[in-house]
Amino acid sequence: MNKVIILAGGQGKRMKADMPKPLFRVLGEPMLEWVISACEESGLSDICVVKGFMGEMIDEYLGGRYTTVLQAERLGTGHAVMQAVPFLEKDTDGNTLVLCGDAPFIDPKAISEALEIHTQQNNAVTVITAELENPHGYGRIIRTDSGISGIVEQKDASDEQKLIREVNSGAYWFRTADLIGLLGKLECTNAQKEYYLTDTIAIALAEGKNAGAYKSENPDIIKGANDRKDLLELNTYARMAVIGKHLENGVEFTCLDGITIERSVEIGAGTEILAGTILRKGTVIGKSCSIGPNCIIENCTIGNDVNLNNVQAYDSRVDDNVKIGPWVQLRPNSHIKSGVKIGDFVEIKNSTIGEQTAVAHLTYVGDSDVGKKVNFGCGTVTVNYDGVVKNRCVIGDNCFIGCNTNLVAPVKLGKAVYTAAGTTITKDVPDYALAIDRGKLAVKENYSLRKLKSKLDK
Amino acid sequence: MNKVIILAGGQGKRMKADMPKPLFRVLGEPMLEWVISACEESGLSDICVVKGFMGEMIDEYLGGRYTTVLQAERLGTGHAVMQAVPFLEKDTDGNTLVLCGDAPFIDPKAISEALEIHTQQNNAVTVITAELENPHGYGRIIRTDSGISGIVEQKDASDEQKLIREVNSGAYWFRTADLIGLLGKLECTNAQKEYYLTDTIAIALAEGKNAGAYKSENPDIIKGANDRKDLLELNTYARMAVIGKHLENGVEFTCLDGITIERSVEIGAGTEILAGTILRKGTVIGKSCSIGPNCIIENCTIGNDVNLNNVQAYDSRVDDNVKIGPWVQLRPNSHIKSGVKIGDFVEIKNSTIGEQTAVAHLTYVGDSDVGKKVNFGCGTVTVNYDGVVKNRCVIGDNCFIGCNTNLVAPVKLGKAVYTAAGTTITKDVPDYALAIDRGKLAVKENYSLRKLKSKLDK
Amino acid sequence: MNKVIILAGGQGKRMKADMPKPLFRVLGEPMLEWVISACEESGLSDICVVKGFMGEMIDEYLGGRYTTVLQAERLGTGHAVMQAVPFLEKDTDGNTLVLCGDAPFIDPKAISEALEIHTQQNNAVTVITAELENPHGYGRIIRTDSGISGIVEQKDASDEQKLIREVNSGAYWFRTADLIGLLGKLECTNAQKEYYLTDTIAIALAEGKNAGAYKSENPDIIKGANDRKDLLELNTYARMAVIGKHLENGVEFTCLDGITIERSVEIGAGTEILAGTILRKGTVIGKSCSIGPNCIIENCTIGNDVNLNNVQAYDSRVDDNVKIGPWVQLRPNSHIKSGVKIGDFVEIKNSTIGEQTAVAHLTYVGDSDVGKKVNFGCGTVTVNYDGVVKNRCVIGDNCFIGCNTNLVAPVKLGKAVYTAAGTTITKDVPDYALAIDRGKLAVKENYSLRKLKSKLDK
Repeated sequence: MNKVIILAGGQGKRMKADMPKPLFRVLGEPMLEWVISACEESGLSDICVVKGFMGEMIDEYLGGRYTTVLQAERLGTGHAVMQAVPFLEKDTDGNTLVLCGDAPFIDPKAISEALEIHTQQNNAVTVITAELENPHGYGRIIRTDSGISGIVEQKDASDEQKLIREVNSGAYWFRTADLIGLLGKLECTNAQKEYYLTDTIAIALAEGKNAGAYKSENPDIIKGANDRKDLLELNTYARMAVIGKHLENGVEFTCLDGITIERSVEIGAGTEILAGTILRKGTVIGKSCSIGPNCIIENCTIGNDVNLNNVQAYDSRVDDNVKIGPWVQLRPNSHIKSGVKIGDFVEIKNSTIGEQTAVAHLTYVGDSDVGKKVNFGCGTVTVNYDGVVKNRCVIGDNCFIGCNTNLVAPVKLGKAVYTAAGTTITKDVPDYALAIDRGKLAVKENYSLRKLKSKLDK
Repeated sequence: MNKVIILAGGQGKRMKADMPKPLFRVLGEPMLEWVISACEESGLSDICVVKGFMGEMIDEYLGGRYTTVLQAERLGTGHAVMQAVPFLEKDTDGNTLVLCGDAPFIDPKAISEALEIHTQQNNAVTVITAELENPHGYGRIIRTDSGISGIVEQKDASDEQKLIREVNSGAYWFRTADLIGLLGKLECTNAQKEYYLTDTIAIALAEGKNAGAYKSENPDIIKGANDRKDLLELNTYARMAVIGKHLENGVEFTCLDGITIERSVEIGAGTEILAGTILRKGTVIGKSCSIGPNCIIENCTIGNDVNLNNVQAYDSRVDDNVKIGPWVQLRPNSHIKSGVKIGDFVEIKNSTIGEQTAVAHLTYVGDSDVGKKVNFGCGTVTVNYDGVVKNRCVIGDNCFIGCNTNLVAPVKLGKAVYTAAGTTITKDVPDYALAIDRGKLAVKENYSLRKLKSKLDK
Repeated sequence: MNKVIILAGGQGKRMKADMPKPLFRVLGEPMLEWVISACEESGLSDICVVKGFMGEMIDEYLGGRYTTVLQAERLGTGHAVMQAVPFLEKDTDGNTLVLCGDAPFIDPKAISEALEIHTQQNNAVTVITAELENPHGYGRIIRTDSGISGIVEQKDASDEQKLIREVNSGAYWFRTADLIGLLGKLECTNAQKEYYLTDTIAIALAEGKNAGAYKSENPDIIKGANDRKDLLELNTYARMAVIGKHLENGVEFTCLDGITIERSVEIGAGTEILAGTILRKGTVIGKSCSIGPNCIIENCTIGNDVNLNNVQAYDSRVDDNVKIGPWVQLRPNSHIKSGVKIGDFVEIKNSTIGEQTAVAHLTYVGDSDVGKKVNFGCGTVTVNYDGVVKNRCVIGDNCFIGCNTNLVAPVKLGKAVYTAAGTTITKDVPDYALAIDRGKLAVKENYSLRKLKSKLDK
């Protein structure tokens, strides 16, 4: 079976953060995750990640999804791959793909097509390459009639070789059995005293084996990041690529500023995304919606014809024909059913809001099951926490909740219950009843004149 | 009288939305509206819009403002114009302008200057043209000593003709009587079996009539959109053009990101517009204001020296020296008078707020008439809806509304009325009075110790 | 001692605002302030600002920090410097730097290195220059073997001189004693009848004195602004330069849109700044924070591991491990201690919030001293203003404030006090007590049926 080794031991000193470089994020996901996705999309799931600097963070991130091995000393790319020999030896049939954990844009097409060439040409090793406008600093590919004769690093390249624009991406296919053998023959007799994976090519050729190269049409597979500026560029590149895909699908954008859409997000045609909107993983948005400006939607399912204006929504569901905002937060486990209208300064948490219910302003609905066509007065609060436990409120269809009502959970309002403004509901209320808790209004005449007088007297 | 025919039958399949292409919006207005405005600014009001794909949406949008005719089959631009012959025959004196409904940047200057040349040269038809850096794909203008000899499409152009950078904008002036005649002679003997409007030129010349071209200095008159990416480009172009105009007028911008200003908006010199601000149709802003970040202002009149920070305002009026925000919504029909201060998390709807009144935080004022120098405590709610009808609150000058007060409409507070915190006002309160509705405060000692004990007991 | 004269008399008519040009702002600070900072960083504090158009605004801005003199008539740069002669005569030893008040990017390196050359070469005058890609419109520097022979303005330059790309920045070092002498010899016999400071070079050379030039590597020292478009460009340039510095320091940015960071702001490595965030003067942010989107932070100290989402904070302090937002305002003089969580629609003003306290939603805490581990229910209001004076609330550790509670200041809650939902607290509450102010809840059956019936009857 074909395998993958991902090199994820780098530090990224110039990032100035204590984190392995492959864990720095592009569009919200570690670069390592982008590399893993490309493998999975190519049908490659037998993956070994070689960790090094702060390797425990790699393990923590992967959460056991894949094998990891530790490169305890930093002795070069060849040495990194050597750590994975036990992983390779479990099954030496087939081929092994070696990838850099910090080159996030490696694509499934390049992986598959390189494998095809690799097997067709019966190669021991096949380098994945690309052509760059400015190849300075990269290892140049020396092509021969039958394959390649090696990779020449910038510092070793002749003037003629420096003109070569085809460069090493750092990704390779190896025949697994050959890789194990070649690793055993690597030496660290160079100035840096490191084991270079690229040296395997010369060794293979010397043994009469074939070495080849597959040139990807997509030079972005080489892109990596050494500092925060590079990382910003990767993010910008990915942002624009994702937005470009949605434009093609018929999503409307009239100003891209501040819009970040993570790569797994789905959006229906005819939906408009306004400036400043951030759409995160797990989000699916229907057709003909208007989302933004300045929304954050994370792991939510949004129906069709939904209008969200300055809404933050997390782990929630919004059905069709809903209008929310401006300035509303849907906290996890909320379900807003079709036809609901939510106005400004409203928080919904862990609640279901029934069809056509209205929550107009300055209201908190938490841990509640709300029926259809309920009307919430301004300032309503579900008192879901008594300092010890959280309890639920149940509100029946057609209820009319007066302004500044407190609903002290656990409590249940039946159908079409009215609550008077300023009332604190502490017990269940039957269908059709009015609940009221109000003192007598006293009017003390000339109060403000006396107050003004006492102020003047001072 | 001079007339206009606007071709608005296109579908825009690559937009992936069921809407006629001319209804896709640039800076908030359909491209068709931009074309109509250019006509109106040129003094041309006798307009016939030729609809086709989902033509009923064109009618719905126009709301009877102009004549429309339906092109039921899609048989080319010539065929589209043929549908307007009855419109033309009502008055065959004068000239007729033919425009594309999806080229929004046609400008009044080009329209007027082209008409001048058209009449001076006694032309049957005058093509409006522009010179493009890259003319590939456009019909080239073949000039002669006395006018033009025709328009050659890309696919028919010789190598020499392909070098011509003057291209057809798709806009033409015709002598109306000639246009009717020429349309009658169009044939659809080409491969596509369509009637091409450009064929009228050859027919006119063959009849010994004059055909000419007017070259606009502004190549943007040709810009159109076939997909969402093009539409984004049109929006970006228009955004920057509008902002450029305001910069010239002395409006301050230090960062343009997320700023979209529709073309009819007026802004006084010395006003600063901050990032993320969207200013929509019908908005007029005075001098020395600070608007933004992240405001949405739609159809509002804003005075001088106004500071709006994260405010959304719709169909409302704000007088001089007002400070609002952050996070405030003015819903339609609100009038905020001079010297008012509104703080955070406030909604005003269909209300007048008198001079120097303060609404500091977390308050809803709806359907109310509020006097001068009123102070609203935090959490005040005007209870304007009883589940059946909406009523108004009237609050006199110098009132002091306590925190978490409910004002149950209809209700009237006189001058300088005080309401105690937490009071629900259910009847009118005379001038200078205090209204209070408060139970006796009971203090139960050691409550939390007992509560903690019972918790520990569990 | 070395001195500085800053020319700040210009009007900037094309800005279309009544303000001296040097007071227009780049990244929140007047251009004049940028020039002053460059002097101060170079150890030059003896500064005379020459004011002219609306000079009183310059005085008001400077607030007595530096000497100012008025150029009452606009008779050229030489005339402007003449107004400072009394300032120069106080101490004629040493050298005098002349700077433009509207060229904000003059840098301390250029100032110091130019002074070094100036003294080494024993010059009477040393021009600070830079090389421009497109020098059109600028005065060209005519170099000789021993120094310079003069500065030729665009309109007077020969074709050969027009090819010179080294231009006058408008900044000069003079030997102070020489400057006084040279100013005395300036004439206004030119067409404009103005005294040109550049004429001092020819006079000095004619007297056998040395004139030289120092070429800065940084052409941006020349950048100025004549209109709002230029000013936008200066702002954009400065924004990107400041962000670039933070990227180098390990601050994470994945989208720069709408981000403006003033130049004195400090940010720790590993902190992420999200789109739409504005960081103003006096702000220091720690490590590993997440700030944004859409925050405004002004003159605040923010600790490590702080998460601010849509927060506006002014003149306040936030300690470590605090999470605030979305939509929260910290008004001046607030101190949020470590471990605090503040949710949505909360305003804190002039208050201390103790460690690990939670203020979840829709709450106003003003003029209050809040202890540790307090829990604020939704809708809590500190009633800090009685219409005459503001008073404080004191809330002990471990208090549990019920929803929609009013705390009428001055009031003190002891330790672990509970308040019942909907209660108005008007007197101090001892440790561990429950305070409750609640009427009896009345339930009126079939109310909504009657209401519906009466509605139907109408």
